[in-house]
Amino acid sequence: MKSHVPLLDKITYYIVKRKGKQVRPMFVFLSARMLAKPSESTYHAASMVELLHTATLVHDDVVDDSFERRGFFSINALWKNKIAVLVGDYLLSRGLLLALDNKEFQLLSILSTAVKMMSEGELLQIEKARNLDIKEEVYYEVIRQKTASLIAAACSAGAASATEDTKVIEQFRLFGEYIGMAFQIKDDLFDFGDIDVGKPLGIDIKEKKMTLPLIYALQNAPRSQRRYIINIIKNHNNDKHKVAEVIDFVQKSGGIEYSNEVMIDYRNRAILILDEFKDSPSKSSMKDLVFFVTERKK
Amino acid sequence: MKSHVPLLDKITYYIVKRKGKQVRPMFVFLSARMLAKPSESTYHAASMVELLHTATLVHDDVVDDSFERRGFFSINALWKNKIAVLVGDYLLSRGLLLALDNKEFQLLSILSTAVKMMSEGELLQIEKARNLDIKEEVYYEVIRQKTASLIAAACSAGAASATEDTKVIEQFRLFGEYIGMAFQIKDDLFDFGDIDVGKPLGIDIKEKKMTLPLIYALQNAPRSQRRYIINIIKNHNNDKHKVAEVIDFVQKSGGIEYSNEVMIDYRNRAILILDEFKDSPSKSSMKDLVFFVTERKK
Repeated sequence: MKSHVPLLDKITYYIVKRKGKQVRPMFVFLSARMLAKPSESTYHAASMVELLHTATLVHDDVVDDSFERRGFFSINALWKNKIAVLVGDYLLSRGLLLALDNKEFQLLSILSTAVKMMSEGELLQIEKARNLDIKEEVYYEVIRQKTASLIAAACSAGAASATEDTKVIEQFRLFGEYIGMAFQIKDDLFDFGDIDVGKPLGIDIKEKKMTLPLIYALQNAPRSQRRYIINIIKNHNNDKHKVAEVIDFVQKSGGIEYSNEVMIDYRNRAILILDEFKDSPSKSSMKDLVFFVTERKK
Repeated sequence: MKSHVPLLDKITYYIVKRKGKQVRPMFVFLSARMLAKPSESTYHAASMVELLHTATLVHDDVVDDSFERRGFFSINALWKNKIAVLVGDYLLSRGLLLALDNKEFQLLSILSTAVKMMSEGELLQIEKARNLDIKEEVYYEVIRQKTASLIAAACSAGAASATEDTKVIEQFRLFGEYIGMAFQIKDDLFDFGDIDVGKPLGIDIKEKKMTLPLIYALQNAPRSQRRYIINIIKNHNNDKHKVAEVIDFVQKSGGIEYSNEVMIDYRNRAILILDEFKDSPSKSSMKDLVFFVTERKK
């Protein structure tokens, strides 16, 4: 990642230091290993997926105006929007060049599709945030695109590095998609939970992001209460106490339990796909990873 | 460019409507036509170059916090940073998929290199903005990367769509680089000019961007004046009257004339490369384009 711009090197050093759980490259490796011995392509895929994920996180820093991420200050808070956009673009282009230099054209195609879907998903979410009365189906579409697409890409890229069987690659893509859905539902649950996950509670509400626990709660509330809550989200989303009221409303509605059930349902569908493959140490590691992702505390 | 996100379609419609001079695709077509009949690859190259340029403009909207571009409101002012980043990423990924679907791997490589260089160049500029006492050489390095790299990519991609001769492709790349340098110097001159170019005067000074006319003026000023001017840029860059003083200082220093000479020198070097190719209608159109770019009033 070395460049000839000292500022850039300082930032990439900072990014590498604060690296996250690296869940996505694990999906790449385990998907590949369930099928064959990981090849050089598997390593390319794992690097590119994480690079791409990092690029989108950096761009997210611009986007969300969040001042904390992974417990550190975000790139944004330290170096401003301008730099975050450029560093994200730089990382993207490095990823592209890595793939091109190694003639990984299928990988490129898988990942470009993921970038397209992620940006579409985020934009769809923004669009829907204007109309707060959104349906569950729209929520699933949003998280399928903005989150599940990259984990789906990780799994299909891993599989594609180990086999040419398009049916198998598609199975892994779908497995990744289901896990990605579960992953995002889990993430959205944190916004209403009481565990310290290194990001403040109620931030989605503040940003008018309608997530499953809230959508469920609104669906099942009497009309007057629904109006009251929607009014808070629309007009008092910067008022701490009002936001706490929304969190309380969701907690009492059964929205947490319902979302947990939906999440487990996606996880079960993913496990069903895994069970079409023969038992192996990689398969049980993959199952461990699946349970880690859906039961993590942060 | 049709998507299934109405918000995105609205924005791409808006982008298409406010389309600019489309200089870069012209460089692609003319480079190709100087060598052979434009092929389907030429069209792919032209589309991708403009798509990429648009993506970086949209990202630029986040970056520069400028509220006006091409005379319209910027995407940023209308729809905020978040959306601009996402739309830029979306456009990039569409460009990538266009190239991948058509197996344009050389084009991808040329353009990914350009994206990498552009982001590096912008970051280098930001880094140097902290140390206001920058040298001419650093300025040339910045504009070579942030601007000239894409025009170089346009010309080499155009050439690559018409010939496999790597020496010729490299000649066109270098031609594009020289023109890109001239193009940016011209652009930087507008910041000190008195022509209405649809963007406010002195905006570079406000953003502490050290461009050639200013660098020259500072180099040739007595020490006390240099200190006085640098102090304005550092500490009073939001004061209209002080910024006007800097503009006046540059105008009186001969920095405008000097920059014009450097620009013409780059143009001449570009023309020399063109003259290694046989005369043709495309070659004279290319020369017209070169003169348009360096003599434009906006």
